[in-house]
Amino acid sequence: MAKKPAPDSTRRSEKSRRAIYAAALALVSETGYAKTTIEGIAARAGVGKQTIYRWWSSKADVLLEAFLDLGEQAAERAGQSGQETYGIPDTGDLAADLKQVLRATVDELLDPAFEAPARALTAEGFVNEEVGREFVAKLLEPQLQLYVQRLRSAQETGAVRPDVDPRIALELFVSPLAQRWLQHTGPITHAYTDTLVDYALYGLAPR
Amino acid sequence: MAKKPAPDSTRRSEKSRRAIYAAALALVSETGYAKTTIEGIAARAGVGKQTIYRWWSSKADVLLEAFLDLGEQAAERAGQSGQETYGIPDTGDLAADLKQVLRATVDELLDPAFEAPARALTAEGFVNEEVGREFVAKLLEPQLQLYVQRLRSAQETGAVRPDVDPRIALELFVSPLAQRWLQHTGPITHAYTDTLVDYALYGLAPR
Repeated sequence: MAKKPAPDSTRRSEKSRRAIYAAALALVSETGYAKTTIEGIAARAGVGKQTIYRWWSSKADVLLEAFLDLGEQAAERAGQSGQETYGIPDTGDLAADLKQVLRATVDELLDPAFEAPARALTAEGFVNEEVGREFVAKLLEPQLQLYVQRLRSAQETGAVRPDVDPRIALELFVSPLAQRWLQHTGPITHAYTDTLVDYALYGLAPR
Repeated sequence: MAKKPAPDSTRRSEKSRRAIYAAALALVSETGYAKTTIEGIAARAGVGKQTIYRWWSSKADVLLEAFLDLGEQAAERAGQSGQETYGIPDTGDLAADLKQVLRATVDELLDPAFEAPARALTAEGFVNEEVGREFVAKLLEPQLQLYVQRLRSAQETGAVRPDVDPRIALELFVSPLAQRWLQHTGPITHAYTDTLVDYALYGLAPR
């Protein structure tokens, strides 16, 4: 059975919501977190500021959801949906699965639509501990937990040593990519993240 | 033969220089990079702004040297000096040498005198690419190159595989610590950095 079309009011709300997200991400990219205001977002989105306050309690809330929506849109374009959005594949080949996800992350980090607002928010999080902790707890840590799950599954099949702490282990390939992206300390390529996975899994010392 | 005392003018300069560094680090900690000015540094240090302009061309220059001086002071307190300041020990035991340096880095990152200005500058570097590249080139990368040297030495003795790229390899233990410090994604302890070294050298996969 075909889905019933949304009533007019819902469609209007959906359109406003997307306009508000776009305005929030554009403003934080252009002026930074500190200068982004609910009033500014409302003006740019062409809505009254009461519309924003009806749905969100702060600019941090608006931005958080704008980012979650950006991730969902990217996943939809990639042909994923729902639960799968943030899943890490489990084909039984740990190295291949990690390389695939990190290559997709490289593409996202190099996408200007994601890069500028993500960078502005991350920078704010470094000096504003409250904002930092909020975004880490709601955006970053849930993504890292997917690596934890994948590494646990690899421990069950014997691909990762049983005494390894998965929450620390994932940092060996996730953190180097994050630092290169944030500090421009080196190029970000698929070859680079492939190398990180190989070094992390097999170690720097001879086997 | 005892060292001849410095003439009065040199001692005055040295005192002014240290006062200027302290003022610059305090201001960037308290107000961030953007609001720190040469005028503000001069006022806080109790010198004329021409004194600052005589020695440095920009606030970025002052801060860069203030950080280098902070590192030298820490090294002096630790009983090191000159060339050894930034050296990584080479006892022949790679794991032990890396653990020692990373434990010292943990102590530095948790030292308030270093933490606040370092965090403010790092945050600025994420949104201001010019500042970021300057500080990476003059402060961060020279430190990372010391790990490159130590890993090359380990390749010569067979402790690290010959096909490993040392510039990428060092990121497996340096970047996770940097990310935890910057994003508060987990505790920073000696046990944590010891674990990073073990995972990086011996790998996550069973041997």
